[in-house]
Amino acid sequence: MKAIAKAPGKAILTGEHFVVYDQPALVMAIDRFISVTVAKRPDTSIRISSTLGYTGTFEGEKFHSEQGGGAAQRILTPVHISASAVLDAVNHRCGLNINVDSEIPVEVGLGSSGALAVATVSAVGRLFDIAFSEPEVVNLSLEAERYVHNNPSGVDQTVSTYGGVIQYRKNQSAIRLEVESPLSLVIGNTGVRRETGRLVDSVRARRTRIPDVMDRVIRSAGVLTTKAVDALKSGNVSLLGELMDVNHGLLVAAGVSSIELDRLVHAARSGGALGAKLTGAGGGGCVLALVPDERQDTVSRAIQDADGVPIKVNKVEGGVHSWINE
Amino acid sequence: MKAIAKAPGKAILTGEHFVVYDQPALVMAIDRFISVTVAKRPDTSIRISSTLGYTGTFEGEKFHSEQGGGAAQRILTPVHISASAVLDAVNHRCGLNINVDSEIPVEVGLGSSGALAVATVSAVGRLFDIAFSEPEVVNLSLEAERYVHNNPSGVDQTVSTYGGVIQYRKNQSAIRLEVESPLSLVIGNTGVRRETGRLVDSVRARRTRIPDVMDRVIRSAGVLTTKAVDALKSGNVSLLGELMDVNHGLLVAAGVSSIELDRLVHAARSGGALGAKLTGAGGGGCVLALVPDERQDTVSRAIQDADGVPIKVNKVEGGVHSWINE
Repeated sequence: MKAIAKAPGKAILTGEHFVVYDQPALVMAIDRFISVTVAKRPDTSIRISSTLGYTGTFEGEKFHSEQGGGAAQRILTPVHISASAVLDAVNHRCGLNINVDSEIPVEVGLGSSGALAVATVSAVGRLFDIAFSEPEVVNLSLEAERYVHNNPSGVDQTVSTYGGVIQYRKNQSAIRLEVESPLSLVIGNTGVRRETGRLVDSVRARRTRIPDVMDRVIRSAGVLTTKAVDALKSGNVSLLGELMDVNHGLLVAAGVSSIELDRLVHAARSGGALGAKLTGAGGGGCVLALVPDERQDTVSRAIQDADGVPIKVNKVEGGVHSWINE
Repeated sequence: MKAIAKAPGKAILTGEHFVVYDQPALVMAIDRFISVTVAKRPDTSIRISSTLGYTGTFEGEKFHSEQGGGAAQRILTPVHISASAVLDAVNHRCGLNINVDSEIPVEVGLGSSGALAVATVSAVGRLFDIAFSEPEVVNLSLEAERYVHNNPSGVDQTVSTYGGVIQYRKNQSAIRLEVESPLSLVIGNTGVRRETGRLVDSVRARRTRIPDVMDRVIRSAGVLTTKAVDALKSGNVSLLGELMDVNHGLLVAAGVSSIELDRLVHAARSGGALGAKLTGAGGGGCVLALVPDERQDTVSRAIQDADGVPIKVNKVEGGVHSWINE
């Protein structure tokens, strides 16, 4: 008997970075998924294999790498933490075989680690016939976050769990928005890995040096997200696009863009996007372009011509789901 | 007898565009000049020759092009207007030979038309032995502005007349700042002509669509210029650089940057600039990089490698000056 869970990645529509300063952010689940399959083992080992090319076994504190060399332990530890968190929660001590299959690029701000934790928690829960509530999934998924340390806000885990579009604010309950319009996007991956922690620190340092200016920029971003929520609710997709353009400028002001990101933003706009911005921590990672349905191909080509890797994505309403495969 | 006047161009350190919405801006005279030489003629014609390749004669309402074809009239008319304004003011009706020699690139936001008007007014005034006061020079120079329509605020004429660094605010007297630090800059010309009017309109349209957000962005820019004034007064040049970086982001948010401008901004920063931003209307035109003295060459090379034309400039304390050459 196997349990399988599938969780979506995410893209930040508006508000990244400024969310640290108590401003709201808008985050959307995208139709790119991580699937986690788990089965019980007769021993107490946890063997994890990822299609990214890493395999290894955890036996208590010990780790044996089978594929992917020294990096395997770092890559697979979050999965081990998530699985162990569930085993602890359900008070079981058994071994597991875990297979991870991901279509979300890693370390570019598309929420792959959050989705991985959410899918692992849901799959292991399902294996023991436990249907965790959504808040429980988010909570258990946050255990791995303490190791990965990519997104301490928990927004990635929240959106992977609930799906759809989430209005998020630090230390407040996430609000799931009812958004009727389909949202077509093209993500453009620069291929440059970003260093979230360093970028968050650099924004903080800039704010410390020029608080009068940066507090106003931060507040502009908060108001911008509120307007983006209104635009989504009223189906005004082109206004959402313009707000994304403005949001990109505020992120440039915060100092987190790069020539690779700016190049893809301009390419997407020239290709007919309604708006484009960097998404996530910046420095590297991805841009996000909001596009009319019929222009997903044109914008994808424009991003490719500007040395980016385009990924066509759409809003997905469902969050993580899990099932048993006998 | 000839009269000669030499007026500096300008670069906007902070605040362009936002100045339209009653925010302060900081503008600096640069050591690139326009020289205008005038002599009386026995008739009542005004013959104007520019080293840019235009020559023609105005006789009353009529114009005869000698060089530069049909464009000559449009190019030379502002000089004719400035000269006529002075002839009217001093109540003379005589002919003039006027030679214009410019080292300021045109239509890229470096204040060439303002400097041309200021130099023409000063030279013609000097020819009649009249030393106009600075406000008189600014005022007479604004006549030509009504034709060129590049910079209705009058800030270009003001800085070309006074030199140094000017804190400017719409409908208020310009304040000349005492700045002891030398300021080394590298301008990077994209070679793309900008359309000032269209860009000013596009910012206004964005503000009309999303006033809550854009009013906050505009106010951020105003506070930023106030901080830049403090930084200049206290000699904190690296803080001024950082404020220029932030200012660039606010201009991106206003929608007036372009891939060519962003590329030069990133190139300048990678080359060691303390800060870099687009300068002037945007859309095309130039970027402005503040650099430590010893890095003017490195930053120039970086701009060249990114397909820009670098121009090393420095703050110049003096404004327009004129003299007689017997």
